[in-house]
Amino acid sequence: MAAVGTLYGIGVGPGDPELLTVKAARLIGASPVIAYFAKRGGKGTARMIAHGYFGPSAVELPLYYPVTVELSATEPEYHALLVSFYDEAAAAVALHLAQGRDVVVLCEGDPLFYGSYMYLHDRIAPRFPSVVVPGVTGMAGCAATAGLPMTYGNDVLLVVPGTLGEDELERRLAGADAAVIMKLGRNFPKVRRVLERLGLADRSTYVERGTMPGGHATPLMQKADDTAPYFSLVLVPGRERRVAAQAEAKAV
Amino acid sequence: MAAVGTLYGIGVGPGDPELLTVKAARLIGASPVIAYFAKRGGKGTARMIAHGYFGPSAVELPLYYPVTVELSATEPEYHALLVSFYDEAAAAVALHLAQGRDVVVLCEGDPLFYGSYMYLHDRIAPRFPSVVVPGVTGMAGCAATAGLPMTYGNDVLLVVPGTLGEDELERRLAGADAAVIMKLGRNFPKVRRVLERLGLADRSTYVERGTMPGGHATPLMQKADDTAPYFSLVLVPGRERRVAAQAEAKAV
Repeated sequence: MAAVGTLYGIGVGPGDPELLTVKAARLIGASPVIAYFAKRGGKGTARMIAHGYFGPSAVELPLYYPVTVELSATEPEYHALLVSFYDEAAAAVALHLAQGRDVVVLCEGDPLFYGSYMYLHDRIAPRFPSVVVPGVTGMAGCAATAGLPMTYGNDVLLVVPGTLGEDELERRLAGADAAVIMKLGRNFPKVRRVLERLGLADRSTYVERGTMPGGHATPLMQKADDTAPYFSLVLVPGRERRVAAQAEAKAV
Repeated sequence: MAAVGTLYGIGVGPGDPELLTVKAARLIGASPVIAYFAKRGGKGTARMIAHGYFGPSAVELPLYYPVTVELSATEPEYHALLVSFYDEAAAAVALHLAQGRDVVVLCEGDPLFYGSYMYLHDRIAPRFPSVVVPGVTGMAGCAATAGLPMTYGNDVLLVVPGTLGEDELERRLAGADAAVIMKLGRNFPKVRRVLERLGLADRSTYVERGTMPGGHATPLMQKADDTAPYFSLVLVPGRERRVAAQAEAKAV
């Protein structure tokens, strides 16, 4: 019997194809099967980022989400639908592995922080060899685009999805030195209200599309409208800037 | 007068030289001047990671920390020493920029999250063009080494330095779904006590040296001794594993 294949969960970074790691580029180029999540009818963001690294004979395995609009994960129907979807996606990947072919799963950002890959990993890693290749996260890409130092010394960093309820969002953010608020979209007006109430709005920066084409950063106070795409986030830099602050005071 | 050079703050990732980005490798290879922080007498971790990408005629600019043991940043003498050090380091970098040479500053992990680069950026970016190239963070590298999915769906992620006082550490961690506790070293016994009191120890994983040679992961409950190097951390994965958990229940 032939040896089984290895599952590779590979972070492709925050958008710019040059922000893949050297290791990711090598493994993607050598893989016989390349899987990725995508909206039905779409090409998949991770695939768009990594496509230039595909080998000439790679077999593509798109995994199409059953729902394209983000629904609450607490709704039982949505939950059941996703469980079936991840079960089927894992079975499709495992079929290749069982036949001795390695499978790369492309993941936007990093595979183990908020990635759909984790649902495959949980199902497949107990049965087949697996390797995770970490990637540059969306938040690191956005901070770089903004040129915004985020956490100094003993700062505590909080990463919060904007999908939380308004009260919970406020309660969580109240204790943070530095924060990243993701998943804005229609949650943006709520996020802005919470940051204003906590007195954090004036040191917040809004970043849209990060390192993707057209990515840009704006101080939150200067953003006039309330629209935000899914690939946007708010960065709140940390307060522990004593060394930096002292230098600034000297420079004045 | 010649054009000024550009400051590049470049993340070299968590340890494995293959975990540099393609962009970092390209810019490092082309840069006439390569700066990096190091302990006096040492080679510098970031330099060791990135050295294979240096161009043949690159000028190295080591920036030696004035203190090699981590002291509290609240001590006035330590603080004054560091302010002078960063002022002098920024001046040394700026001299090259003023003479028209680009300078790459190598940063372990990502430049804008807990990196010394930020103190240079704050001093130099207002006066010279600057580009930040994000990198794979140490925590992403450690999660990959452990093969440990960290944050699902609406999980809130907390990144906490182990240097915080025991009470504050407990207060901060109490509200977290998922957490990363960095800067262990001599803080490790305190961190373990707090995780035990919060009932988080049994889902925590200790990771030492991440993607560096000899890197390995151990469930915290199985770690017998209380020693931990600086390049180690504790990962507490998130609780929102409903989709995953349901699948696991089905598989039993």
